[in-house]
Amino acid sequence: MEKLIIKRIAIDTYRENVAYMNSGCAVYRAAGFQALSKIKITADHHMILAVLNVVHDECIVSPGELGLSEQAFSQLGLPEGTAVLVDHPEPPISMDAVRRKISGGVLGYDDFVSITRDIIENRYSKMEMAAFLVACAETGLERKETLYYTRAMADSGQKLDWHEPIVADKHCIGGIPGNRTSMLIVPIVAAHGMLIPKTSSRAITSPAGTADTMEVLAEVNLEPKRLYEIVRKERGCLAWGGTSRLAPVDDILITVERPLGIDATGQMVASILSKKLAAGSTHLLLDIPLGPTAKVRHMQQALSLRKIFEYVGDRIGIHLEVMITDGRQPIGSGVGPVLEVRDVMQVLENRPEAPKDLRHKALNLAGRILEFDPDVRGGTGYVVARDILDSGRALAKMQSIIEAQGKKASVPEPGKLTFDIRADSGGVVSCIDNYQINRIARLAGAPLDKGAGVDLFKKLGDKVEKGESLYRIHAEFESDFKFSVRLAERNNAYTIGSREDIPRNPEEF
Amino acid sequence: MEKLIIKRIAIDTYRENVAYMNSGCAVYRAAGFQALSKIKITADHHMILAVLNVVHDECIVSPGELGLSEQAFSQLGLPEGTAVLVDHPEPPISMDAVRRKISGGVLGYDDFVSITRDIIENRYSKMEMAAFLVACAETGLERKETLYYTRAMADSGQKLDWHEPIVADKHCIGGIPGNRTSMLIVPIVAAHGMLIPKTSSRAITSPAGTADTMEVLAEVNLEPKRLYEIVRKERGCLAWGGTSRLAPVDDILITVERPLGIDATGQMVASILSKKLAAGSTHLLLDIPLGPTAKVRHMQQALSLRKIFEYVGDRIGIHLEVMITDGRQPIGSGVGPVLEVRDVMQVLENRPEAPKDLRHKALNLAGRILEFDPDVRGGTGYVVARDILDSGRALAKMQSIIEAQGKKASVPEPGKLTFDIRADSGGVVSCIDNYQINRIARLAGAPLDKGAGVDLFKKLGDKVEKGESLYRIHAEFESDFKFSVRLAERNNAYTIGSREDIPRNPEEF
Repeated sequence: MEKLIIKRIAIDTYRENVAYMNSGCAVYRAAGFQALSKIKITADHHMILAVLNVVHDECIVSPGELGLSEQAFSQLGLPEGTAVLVDHPEPPISMDAVRRKISGGVLGYDDFVSITRDIIENRYSKMEMAAFLVACAETGLERKETLYYTRAMADSGQKLDWHEPIVADKHCIGGIPGNRTSMLIVPIVAAHGMLIPKTSSRAITSPAGTADTMEVLAEVNLEPKRLYEIVRKERGCLAWGGTSRLAPVDDILITVERPLGIDATGQMVASILSKKLAAGSTHLLLDIPLGPTAKVRHMQQALSLRKIFEYVGDRIGIHLEVMITDGRQPIGSGVGPVLEVRDVMQVLENRPEAPKDLRHKALNLAGRILEFDPDVRGGTGYVVARDILDSGRALAKMQSIIEAQGKKASVPEPGKLTFDIRADSGGVVSCIDNYQINRIARLAGAPLDKGAGVDLFKKLGDKVEKGESLYRIHAEFESDFKFSVRLAERNNAYTIGSREDIPRNPEEF
Repeated sequence: MEKLIIKRIAIDTYRENVAYMNSGCAVYRAAGFQALSKIKITADHHMILAVLNVVHDECIVSPGELGLSEQAFSQLGLPEGTAVLVDHPEPPISMDAVRRKISGGVLGYDDFVSITRDIIENRYSKMEMAAFLVACAETGLERKETLYYTRAMADSGQKLDWHEPIVADKHCIGGIPGNRTSMLIVPIVAAHGMLIPKTSSRAITSPAGTADTMEVLAEVNLEPKRLYEIVRKERGCLAWGGTSRLAPVDDILITVERPLGIDATGQMVASILSKKLAAGSTHLLLDIPLGPTAKVRHMQQALSLRKIFEYVGDRIGIHLEVMITDGRQPIGSGVGPVLEVRDVMQVLENRPEAPKDLRHKALNLAGRILEFDPDVRGGTGYVVARDILDSGRALAKMQSIIEAQGKKASVPEPGKLTFDIRADSGGVVSCIDNYQINRIARLAGAPLDKGAGVDLFKKLGDKVEKGESLYRIHAEFESDFKFSVRLAERNNAYTIGSREDIPRNPEEF
């Protein structure tokens, strides 16, 4: 078959490979390609798949050329002018398994291996990934399927081995705005000398993940080799799991999960535990917040989630403990990367205005992790953690982690467009809807606009006067700002009632 | 906000709108758009949504311009040089309903109305459409949901009213290769004088739909006005339902269903009946083929499908009858548009080599439709239909329908690349796998390559010698040809056994 000469087209198509072929091209006509069909591009041992766009303009590509968008060009990794072969790709065979799942089947380990491989090799379109995710979300995965999927995901990329008996990690299943405990736990635990190489994902449906927030202070995209050196020296890190090539399939699927806003149990368990397994974690503390507007709303649900984590954890050899925590309202005051960084730094610096709930929760979790150390007596972890924080050793550790990862020149200000949401009536704050606060902060532009978000002035149990500010919306761009304010005016997420209306704290059960 | 000047970019992006913005553009930076995000483009009362590609090359678009792919340009419908506003689109609110469905909820009429409206207004990405389709496929739609969805789809476009007491239609649920009875039934019924304005969809997972096959002989993309005139004059037509603006949402969803290869009950029932309702049909004959490799494999399944059709049909006011037919093997000899046209014309021309099973089935179905006429005595429809066919009146009617729709200059030959699949052993053909024949014909290039497909020489009960040809693969392009032959060599779809192994004909139950 005739070859085409590749040409870089300066078009950014994000995570999607696009190839441009002139409609007068012999290959185009002979092979019977259609616009938007997938094509396979090969030369030597390089191969990529791309979506075809057909061009009727020789200035963009001429009939003998094959244009490649920036992503496609860099993924193929060959210089301009290279001759390549273009062909129909074999259809992704693993879509048969996805269709089996859609019609109610149960998938095995081999199915998950071939699905994850096909996704990594870029054989799935976004549409096909959406089909897979929804198929797994709707009737759910059986616990065996979740185990198989976890293993397949962990096996899909590199694996780290730290050659230490305790490699600690913590993870929160999310849903609670402002819950940035990792940025306190990691410096406390690392200051104690326990290894805690924390990699986090970015937000899926929330206004910020730990990686999004840490990125305000330091570089989080670290190559595996660099990450390894930092952890060896600092005993801890706060990095993004994405570019580290650990369970990479998860990072691809996130580009579909995020815009769809789906977040299902089996997918969540497999996604969390495969990352931990690939990261070489031996001990894991899982935080499951419980509350009327948290992801987990009933104790029964929290317990069954604990079981599935324990089932998979035991079978992949991770020592796993679960803490069910207070998820009735946001943690701290800031929601959105820059505002959360402010809260975290106030706690590390032991400032009087530091949010007490954030400090307390971080110490609680850090204490449990410190107790993984055989030398820490059961029940004393909290006190050990508090000493590390109060003495300033946690702050010093955080500063040296930031330096090691690559300190950002400056921390941006909160978004300049602001609007205060005020109480309609006086009383006591009896409910704050986490979900609605998340939506308001996301519409304001978080996490992509670092300074966007919500700054809370009132928390559960606080007294408010009619007209008093409940919180402030921050945004960077006019249209996001409008959407966010409009949403908050329709439903401001706060209920003003009396002290008796406040739901019970699950930590006191 | 600043305006941009539109420029047509000669890139064909099929059914997806793409807009190109220079990365140096003030609007791009001010609004915080991301590559692949969706943008809203407005001017006067024109509005489209498009996917954004970011360009780093002033030759393609300069900072003051907004490039539009051919589809986007023609959908916006404004001349080059027009100043347009670019903004973030409101997120499709109906995705909340899709997420409710994913987490096990039941949707109401209003949900389906808002989902179909958002799809038609191009607010859904392909990924979001895939999520909706899989969500409805996996746990299925309750029959009430199917009714609501049918009404919402029918209401989503134009509706025809023929002002006649009987507007007949037939529909087969598909799955049987070569089953081109509509192209015989329409001329027979129309020759009798009964109104039968048949619109068909294109193939979803099969190698040809009636619209794909009819297109070999005549134009099938007819504007509503033209279609109306043809039917008034000829009493029948064989057109594609797509461009006629009847239940248009279905034609959009097909672009996602086809590559995903999903085809679920609720979606199927709603899709079929909404088209019929919008087309103004009053009487409908439904053909449900039953066989071990048909879509419907057990009598119990056929009966429950009949119930759901009857349930919805009764509530939307269509007189509906169901025939459960022999679906044990392909109908006729040819599979793929050009080969099927050959079979159909042989039957219409009363040639001795015409496939007997195709003739018999068409007469059976046409007879039942003719009995919708109060003047045709119950049980005599078959004979009336046979007289119309044998006398040449059906052929004459077909020719005049072809002329009316726009006759094609010439009928293409079957694909020139051919390969014969031969029997491994001698015996009697005891099973032909419809699904595998469909896959082989599709991989050969059908329905997009009209001449591609499979030509069957042996049917159930035929004796074969070892090495004798079972069928011939036809293809137009080398790479399709290779895939198809490779698939047929791995599994040729035929079982050679003895006469006793042949499954029972469901028409004889």
